[in-house]
Amino acid sequence: MDGVTELAHGKVSKVIRRGDGFTWHGVPLEPYKPTTETYRNVTRRELVGKRGEGTAFHLRYFEVAPGGFTTYERHQHEHVVVPLRGRGVVLIGEARHEVGVGDVIYVAPDDPHQLGAPAGASEPFGFLCIVDAVRDRPVPVEGYGVCDICV
Amino acid sequence: MDGVTELAHGKVSKVIRRGDGFTWHGVPLEPYKPTTETYRNVTRRELVGKRGEGTAFHLRYFEVAPGGFTTYERHQHEHVVVPLRGRGVVLIGEARHEVGVGDVIYVAPDDPHQLGAPAGASEPFGFLCIVDAVRDRPVPVEGYGVCDICV
Repeated sequence: MDGVTELAHGKVSKVIRRGDGFTWHGVPLEPYKPTTETYRNVTRRELVGKRGEGTAFHLRYFEVAPGGFTTYERHQHEHVVVPLRGRGVVLIGEARHEVGVGDVIYVAPDDPHQLGAPAGASEPFGFLCIVDAVRDRPVPVEGYGVCDICV
Repeated sequence: MDGVTELAHGKVSKVIRRGDGFTWHGVPLEPYKPTTETYRNVTRRELVGKRGEGTAFHLRYFEVAPGGFTTYERHQHEHVVVPLRGRGVVLIGEARHEVGVGDVIYVAPDDPHQLGAPAGASEPFGFLCIVDAVRDRPVPVEGYGVCDICV
């Protein structure tokens, strides 16, 4: 299984090897969203859930470059975020949290939220994000939230 | 929210702060299973899903001390495992994988599996494990699998 870069599809046990830095063999780098109007400098890697697995959840890795931020948005599905790299700023409702590796962030239904990396950061802010496989579409919230602070 | 050790229950946004090492404020250390017959030196921390959140998944952190191993078992629900600490050995079916921080392990339905930490390891093997919230009960599999190798 090791050294094979094409990941198995379907319900097939596998080890997705971490590569250099925060990359994984067989997991392509993707844009965070199709359009870039509401976010800045965010990438996405789909780790589990988009290759025919049957889990009720999807596991993704996002990375926000210094000065970047995700869309300030809300939705009914919940977010669970676990930072793996660097430090970031999480805005949830009116609360602003500085977070680091190993913290666990739970975003409740319908709470507006945004994740960002301080402009002066020495490395990107990278985090796992786990969501229900069946979920509603996010709705952008007016304003840019945390980006006023961290960019 | 910071500095409060009692974690909010229900669908309430929160940051679960990592404490010293691989601990989290407000998250108690629990035994891996009620009885110790089929495993050795494994602890559990429930991070998300057991405090009234509505996620279709549960996020837990397990730690296996050097020489320890989880139950060699099978079940219909899938496992997603992300090591955060140390190195471990994962047995899935007849395959044995050495894994480290940041690898992602997907265990398919009904595949017998076990996770262990080498007896000579300098630190525990710690990992996130994500499972469906609604899931079947594991069934122990004959034999101890990887423990013959890693203990």
